[in-house]
Amino acid sequence: MNVKENIKTIIVKKPLKLDCGETISDYPLAYETYGKLNDKKDNAILAFHALTGDQFVSGINPVTKKSGWWSHAVGPSKAIDTNKFFVICANVIGGCMGSFGPKNINPKTNKEFGIDFPVITINDMVNAQYNLLEFFKIDKLYSVTGGSMGGMQALQFVANFPDKTKTAIPIACTASHSAQNIAFNELGRQSIMADANWKNGNYSYLNSSPNKGLAVARMAAHITYLSKKGLQEKFGRKLQEKDDLNFSFDADFQIESYLRYQGSIFVDRFDANSYLYITRAMDYFDLVKQYKGNLSKAFENSKTKFFIISFTSDWLYPTAENKEIVIALNASGVEVGFIEITSDKGHDSFLLDVPEFLKAVKNFLEANY
Amino acid sequence: MNVKENIKTIIVKKPLKLDCGETISDYPLAYETYGKLNDKKDNAILAFHALTGDQFVSGINPVTKKSGWWSHAVGPSKAIDTNKFFVICANVIGGCMGSFGPKNINPKTNKEFGIDFPVITINDMVNAQYNLLEFFKIDKLYSVTGGSMGGMQALQFVANFPDKTKTAIPIACTASHSAQNIAFNELGRQSIMADANWKNGNYSYLNSSPNKGLAVARMAAHITYLSKKGLQEKFGRKLQEKDDLNFSFDADFQIESYLRYQGSIFVDRFDANSYLYITRAMDYFDLVKQYKGNLSKAFENSKTKFFIISFTSDWLYPTAENKEIVIALNASGVEVGFIEITSDKGHDSFLLDVPEFLKAVKNFLEANY
Repeated sequence: MNVKENIKTIIVKKPLKLDCGETISDYPLAYETYGKLNDKKDNAILAFHALTGDQFVSGINPVTKKSGWWSHAVGPSKAIDTNKFFVICANVIGGCMGSFGPKNINPKTNKEFGIDFPVITINDMVNAQYNLLEFFKIDKLYSVTGGSMGGMQALQFVANFPDKTKTAIPIACTASHSAQNIAFNELGRQSIMADANWKNGNYSYLNSSPNKGLAVARMAAHITYLSKKGLQEKFGRKLQEKDDLNFSFDADFQIESYLRYQGSIFVDRFDANSYLYITRAMDYFDLVKQYKGNLSKAFENSKTKFFIISFTSDWLYPTAENKEIVIALNASGVEVGFIEITSDKGHDSFLLDVPEFLKAVKNFLEANY
Repeated sequence: MNVKENIKTIIVKKPLKLDCGETISDYPLAYETYGKLNDKKDNAILAFHALTGDQFVSGINPVTKKSGWWSHAVGPSKAIDTNKFFVICANVIGGCMGSFGPKNINPKTNKEFGIDFPVITINDMVNAQYNLLEFFKIDKLYSVTGGSMGGMQALQFVANFPDKTKTAIPIACTASHSAQNIAFNELGRQSIMADANWKNGNYSYLNSSPNKGLAVARMAAHITYLSKKGLQEKFGRKLQEKDDLNFSFDADFQIESYLRYQGSIFVDRFDANSYLYITRAMDYFDLVKQYKGNLSKAFENSKTKFFIISFTSDWLYPTAENKEIVIALNASGVEVGFIEITSDKGHDSFLLDVPEFLKAVKNFLEANY
């Protein structure tokens, strides 16, 4: 990957005190934009990516040469219409697409940080990205949005900066990472760390690569992104290329080939240590605890208008957890809309062409602008 | 583990043609019994174990020194009352507790079979275990039962031997392994095979052991055995020993320590290749396909009285899949009872002290005897 020439980066000079206690400064923040910022600078939307996303929201990602993660939603005349809105997305800190992360050089050792990189949080990610408002001289965003970990960032953004966005659309997320979700993330981390090529995080320096462990982590996560019903309808027990079972450990079933493929392509575009750091940030996310057990306190000073979206078949961030956010917003007197979209596509629904979902986002954004 | 002195074994001389086409004979089948076979030989119950179970159903397992997997259910005055019934359980072929499996010596090479062991099926397992009836000179069992893969074996037993058991209690199982369940099993297999110490299945011969991969496989499976709600209630976001987050990759949360522990103890008692073979057998299980798409044909010659049990929070083998068995039994005119037990304990409910479940089993067994 020839990363640098395709990546826009600001160097954030202002020191940022991380939740772990360390302070960072002069760190890179990679971003991309879509559409044009208008003269009044009131049409900007900050989109936050999920665990394995990056700043390349729409069109062809110039590094991976694949479609951007939200190509269904963001573009001219799409749900987030780039003829009207100016969409900004940054790679989260801890990531591997140009923002400050474990692949950066540690000035103390002149080697990549690896797991000497500080453990970061969703709060740290959001505080780092806030610098983009200053960079673009935007006083107030029109909206913040994102699904999954992107939704967590949207919630944290409003909690941290209650007067800095007119609207917010957290999608398929939670205010507090559940035990089951921590468990699946821990499974992924253990899979990476079990790979002999991980070498305690120093694999780059040692010309090694924990691709097998990272692929298994991706396979595990991928299963959780889809619904049982969706998997059954798409794959069921369909066999791969043959008419009968192989009686071997080759991929007999299409679902097996699919998962192996998903694992194998993932390692080409993602860094194993970033996977550790970002899952850790998700697991640490607990906006309820940040506000001493009262989630409504997180939003009490906000004039932001919220729209919360969940999906019927999302078992990772189920409707019940999204509704807890709605209840807290109601309790704090914040204006909030909520829709549960019917979809068999599981948690991944927010990334896919789910017309009812995309229409709901479009209507909300255009009605409130 | 000093396996041999604690394990009762028969050597099955009769050739068994496996579904893969190979024929085996003179192979060991390890078993255990509980209670006494009565003079009429009409009180025998064949219990089938699940993926990681073995023949040591109740009391202290003499090899692992832990409680047997069904100690809550099987024993004097318990649900399966060993004062009344004679319980037989065999280690499945493909397993690692004394029955013919990948740890046996391949006479062609004088080394352990490893992955040269033939790929076996649930049908093969059941056909092998049928030899125990002859060994004990039992013409007809009183019941066959088991949960999860044990339930699949119970279904297959009645399909293969329609007049050889008076009753059957398949618990928390399915007639056809779903895409999601294949996906989770494939994840486990890939995790084992990703471990550099697996060495293409020849780890024993090469004095190696894919413990890390096997532990990750176990962690993945373990998450699927518990319900989201159960995990949340038991662990939630409780921290391990400390008052605050570590900001490291140590186990911060109790759920992480729990999973790591489950992985670490599993490798002491289970063989990685057996894990591959048994999950493969589960994935291959499709009683619907065996009967050309009509599951009711599997039971049409049977006089066996069925009792099907599912659990509300079991998302691995949900009630809907258990009900499909009930519907097929109804369609074939077989007598069948069904109960869905309310439990937050997920798929694991069948192994745990769930009083309503245990009472249902006891009542059915004693009412029909």
